[in-house]
Amino acid sequence: MGTHLLLYYFCRPKNTNVRLKLPFVCFAWQIAMIILFGVFVRYNNESDAHWVQNMAQNNITSAIENDFYYRYPSFQDVHVMIFVGFGFLMTFLKRYSFGGVGFNFLIAAFGIQWALLMQGWFHSLDPSTGKIYIGIENLINADFCVAGCLIAYGAVLGKVSPVQLMVMTLFGVTLYAVEEYIILNLLHAIDAGGSMIIHVFGGYYGLAISWVLYRPNLHQSKHLQGSVYHSDTFAMIGTLFLWMFWPSFNSATTYHGDGQHRAAINTYLCLTSCVLTTVAISSLSQKTGKLDMVHIQNSTLAGGVAMGTAAVFMVSPYGALIVGFCCGILSTMGYLYISPFLEKTLKIHDTCGIHNLHAMPGVIGGIVGAITAATASESVYGMQGLINTFDFTGNFKDRTVFAQGGYQAAGMCVAMVFGIGGGAIVGAILRFPIWGDPADENCNDDDVYWEEDQLESVPPILEYCNYMTNKPEDES
Amino acid sequence: MGTHLLLYYFCRPKNTNVRLKLPFVCFAWQIAMIILFGVFVRYNNESDAHWVQNMAQNNITSAIENDFYYRYPSFQDVHVMIFVGFGFLMTFLKRYSFGGVGFNFLIAAFGIQWALLMQGWFHSLDPSTGKIYIGIENLINADFCVAGCLIAYGAVLGKVSPVQLMVMTLFGVTLYAVEEYIILNLLHAIDAGGSMIIHVFGGYYGLAISWVLYRPNLHQSKHLQGSVYHSDTFAMIGTLFLWMFWPSFNSATTYHGDGQHRAAINTYLCLTSCVLTTVAISSLSQKTGKLDMVHIQNSTLAGGVAMGTAAVFMVSPYGALIVGFCCGILSTMGYLYISPFLEKTLKIHDTCGIHNLHAMPGVIGGIVGAITAATASESVYGMQGLINTFDFTGNFKDRTVFAQGGYQAAGMCVAMVFGIGGGAIVGAILRFPIWGDPADENCNDDDVYWEEDQLESVPPILEYCNYMTNKPEDES
Amino acid sequence: MGTHLLLYYFCRPKNTNVRLKLPFVCFAWQIAMIILFGVFVRYNNESDAHWVQNMAQNNITSAIENDFYYRYPSFQDVHVMIFVGFGFLMTFLKRYSFGGVGFNFLIAAFGIQWALLMQGWFHSLDPSTGKIYIGIENLINADFCVAGCLIAYGAVLGKVSPVQLMVMTLFGVTLYAVEEYIILNLLHAIDAGGSMIIHVFGGYYGLAISWVLYRPNLHQSKHLQGSVYHSDTFAMIGTLFLWMFWPSFNSATTYHGDGQHRAAINTYLCLTSCVLTTVAISSLSQKTGKLDMVHIQNSTLAGGVAMGTAAVFMVSPYGALIVGFCCGILSTMGYLYISPFLEKTLKIHDTCGIHNLHAMPGVIGGIVGAITAATASESVYGMQGLINTFDFTGNFKDRTVFAQGGYQAAGMCVAMVFGIGGGAIVGAILRFPIWGDPADENCNDDDVYWEEDQLESVPPILEYCNYMTNKPEDES
Repeated sequence: MGTHLLLYYFCRPKNTNVRLKLPFVCFAWQIAMIILFGVFVRYNNESDAHWVQNMAQNNITSAIENDFYYRYPSFQDVHVMIFVGFGFLMTFLKRYSFGGVGFNFLIAAFGIQWALLMQGWFHSLDPSTGKIYIGIENLINADFCVAGCLIAYGAVLGKVSPVQLMVMTLFGVTLYAVEEYIILNLLHAIDAGGSMIIHVFGGYYGLAISWVLYRPNLHQSKHLQGSVYHSDTFAMIGTLFLWMFWPSFNSATTYHGDGQHRAAINTYLCLTSCVLTTVAISSLSQKTGKLDMVHIQNSTLAGGVAMGTAAVFMVSPYGALIVGFCCGILSTMGYLYISPFLEKTLKIHDTCGIHNLHAMPGVIGGIVGAITAATASESVYGMQGLINTFDFTGNFKDRTVFAQGGYQAAGMCVAMVFGIGGGAIVGAILRFPIWGDPADENCNDDDVYWEEDQLESVPPILEYCNYMTNKPEDES
Repeated sequence: MGTHLLLYYFCRPKNTNVRLKLPFVCFAWQIAMIILFGVFVRYNNESDAHWVQNMAQNNITSAIENDFYYRYPSFQDVHVMIFVGFGFLMTFLKRYSFGGVGFNFLIAAFGIQWALLMQGWFHSLDPSTGKIYIGIENLINADFCVAGCLIAYGAVLGKVSPVQLMVMTLFGVTLYAVEEYIILNLLHAIDAGGSMIIHVFGGYYGLAISWVLYRPNLHQSKHLQGSVYHSDTFAMIGTLFLWMFWPSFNSATTYHGDGQHRAAINTYLCLTSCVLTTVAISSLSQKTGKLDMVHIQNSTLAGGVAMGTAAVFMVSPYGALIVGFCCGILSTMGYLYISPFLEKTLKIHDTCGIHNLHAMPGVIGGIVGAITAATASESVYGMQGLINTFDFTGNFKDRTVFAQGGYQAAGMCVAMVFGIGGGAIVGAILRFPIWGDPADENCNDDDVYWEEDQLESVPPILEYCNYMTNKPEDES
Repeated sequence: MGTHLLLYYFCRPKNTNVRLKLPFVCFAWQIAMIILFGVFVRYNNESDAHWVQNMAQNNITSAIENDFYYRYPSFQDVHVMIFVGFGFLMTFLKRYSFGGVGFNFLIAAFGIQWALLMQGWFHSLDPSTGKIYIGIENLINADFCVAGCLIAYGAVLGKVSPVQLMVMTLFGVTLYAVEEYIILNLLHAIDAGGSMIIHVFGGYYGLAISWVLYRPNLHQSKHLQGSVYHSDTFAMIGTLFLWMFWPSFNSATTYHGDGQHRAAINTYLCLTSCVLTTVAISSLSQKTGKLDMVHIQNSTLAGGVAMGTAAVFMVSPYGALIVGFCCGILSTMGYLYISPFLEKTLKIHDTCGIHNLHAMPGVIGGIVGAITAATASESVYGMQGLINTFDFTGNFKDRTVFAQGGYQAAGMCVAMVFGIGGGAIVGAILRFPIWGDPADENCNDDDVYWEEDQLESVPPILEYCNYMTNKPEDES
């Protein structure tokens, strides 16, 4: 009996009670947001009621020239990707659908606010007034920023507490804003759809955290890993909304006119070819040619990731198809060979396979961007087109396309360093035993953080008997 | 045996056969719509084929100036909120998903047509021709109008027949058009996103109906109340589409340019802070800090409701965050304390908790609108901005902002009076025993109104045994 | 025992192993696409980086005049209809949800690429350079084209292999491009929303294929036909997204300004009245007035199909309501009477009832289009309006509206002939025993083509007992 007590003491279940921690974090951070917004954030010129008066001065003849009309439809598509796309993609686990879509909702809502501030300080701060002026483009960028953290969530899905996720998002957004500033402003790299800034950073950030938080005994909740029929169908909602709206994602912040137009076309094409090679490799990998839902849900999206940097470039339609072709193969191969390797050898458990969907395709996107930038020419772009596409203005007026290619490559390295380094540090912080994370046997289980007094959908016994009676006999 | 017969006579099940009633109502009303549309409704200037000829006369140089391009993306977002948002939010009951999403579909499709007529008579009637001229803005307003009735449906979900819902919608739309005319035209209150017109009215309309239709023996279908795992996940589809597109809802009919821009930003911010306080209170309310799906599905949306009136005002970003902060707390508290109180003390059963999601946040929205209107100043808005925002033109040219604040408050009272009074009368009409409503023990059950010869998804016995074999042993 | 072997030999299960076929087809066709795109496809004027330089020459003063801003929101709505709308509408079968949404994804992604080429050769080829120049309108048209094949998939859902679907799509897109060229360019018929080109063609194409592939012993997989509760709820996602976005579908490629505006209004109205008559007939068809989910999921959409041709015409709002009124009745009647007749008498098994949802309403749409075109008048349209609407320019400058009506009717016949004829031939090709199609007893079963090692969602025994204990007693 003494042994029992001893055993209990050492093996007692982790304390997953977040009754004080979670509300405290939510309240404290929300109040901080309100104070900081009060001090810093104002409407920008185009969302301020003075805009009509300023129109005449700025030579604007019609309200349709308000940036709102250029960007709002794309913004809403991006918004759907963040909340429904990422959220439902993570409902595939059989007993973690609430955690997938619910915590995604929570951290995205928080991250957006913090991103508006962090990105505002770096990009939209007017030094003369000390204020951040926000408009529709800031909202899109905040959604982008949060996407990096949601990607990272994919690696640790089912294994962390909501408090840990909030901490991860706080640091993730902060790191994102810094690396974004370095890549976009200092290096002046182009990354409209964020292959590097969002996907490489977010992917490695998540993987590094997952590596630090590695659970050697995760097999104790093995019965809750994997999906069931309907949870896989729910996940397809996420997949499809991400897939359909990715052209909006990559074109949302590119320059008006042909820039947005071309970015949408390139992404659309890249994604279509990605679907076909994903199906091909998935089918090849099984003895009887069956398809694996995991591949269809994830690898079909790799093309959108890889087009992020080069979407606005003149990669030409067949170039976009080639990128998608390669990404579908590589990403599916990743699920088949690299994920098991990461888990066994490097001890990185990656619940959603973000290495295959975000990190690797992001690296490809960065490389494609660097090469296509370095080989850009005035004959293909036109002189003004070259200036528009690469924003060769101001300090960067005299940069050559070849140099631009080099800076693009440098940008990718920065993203990777921030992801791995930042993730390792944040992972260490998340190891403190104060965040209410679940025990190994409680991973992937909504019961830990969600109230469920409702019964599962149990068939009334009558229907059950009915079924057994009508059940078709085996014809083996 | 005689007793049995007697018992049977008094306790015989209600007649839920709607085979003649429902088709009759659908046909009669649809034919009436066709006749009334034939007499009254025409394309407006911008949707008529003569538009091109009129462009030159009206000094319009480009087709992009057609109101279609200003409003169509927002219209489609609103449309998604009405049909997928409201529809799927009401699928959470374990055996009433068809009724939730299906009847929502039916009454929205009917209500839209009746709203085009009713609102047309009040707002778009050309007295010289006696015709209603419709364009994209009318479609948005019809969707708005129907939203009021769908909110009311939330209070009586599972307890009424489709015929009752059709009657409820007919009267609801009628009342809505009248109160809207009083509030917007006579009082000249501003209510772009309908905190008062839609949510206060719709909320109290539904609650009053539910009060009149109170069922003391509803516990007889208690086993069908509450949700199951997958029905809750379905409901999250509704929640997220409502949450994401609410900025479009509140900005859809505001004035072009900075008006739409600002309304979207304010709503976006308000909703984000609402999520955090909802999570905080939900977690605080449980012994172990678990979250309740009911709160996440509903209270996170309260911020959008409360921003309805003031969305277009210069409430400034931190002001929007504060409104969301308060609404998340209040709405979740509502689910915890006010809903049980309403049911026990006032005998109002509110299936979806519309009091917490619509009525209360709507009242907050009205108050916020009145205060922010009363305190508006030329320094903040600019002179032209003040005129644009509050539409101080024509008869209302000389109104002061302070007076405007008073009229805003008056508007809210009108909405509440129409909701409670109208709901009580319509509820009385719905008590007639001719509408085919279900018996207490058949409430919340799709079997009453939906053909289901399919079996439930019963696990084949083999898989069941398989599961039992693999089931992890308890480690208690 | 010898008998057993003999029986086995003749009755051995079909070889559904697609491990080599499916990857081969995917790779071969994707590589072909890349090569053909490399040879033929380039960005068009508005998506090329030279656009800014060309703006001045073309008298364009603002980037908002780029066609991208006129059409991109509609394009994204159409995109959602293709992938989520069609995809989820086909998840209703209890064990074929993966096949419904997954194969829809696969063939749409492939078909889009092939459609860009086929349609490009016919419509966007610059003879001087031999290149196809693509922009946003080409993407919409590619989505339209693929819709025809997805409709056809509805007829054979559950009964074909993915390889067959790829073959069907290859030929379907090819036939579509030819009939589209004949109808739009040679006959110069108007068909903005594709009642004839998309729905009549796609519907009869699918029915003809299903007729050739008729399986007399399909009853062997009867236990897998029909839906379960949650699969029907999933299908409602598809229904609603199709229903909501159909106004975008019919207005996506019509002319700027009032054309898109009017097409959206007409479709919106037509769909609302269609819902009411569908509900009426569905309720009338059951002894107790219950509704059938199959009707609600499908027939409510018939109005959108039937408005395809005439959406841009001045059919006036009540005209649109009348079309919807008739379509709801006819389509629901089709499910009740025509589908059983087709199956028993003509041996055409139509899994999703595409005859009722697409073929018949498409024919109605064609007739409505012909009549309304023939009766168009300058007083209703205005002279410029008539030219805009019917594109009476170039060679067709002197065509009368009456002649136009005739050409519209001729167009419908062309679509039907291509559908039936093409479908019969393609069906014959699909009968070759090399495509890995499933045996009769394996139809409607995802297990054949999808890897599923996951267990079904089986209720833990504890919850089951719990349920049985709390189960309300029968009150019969």
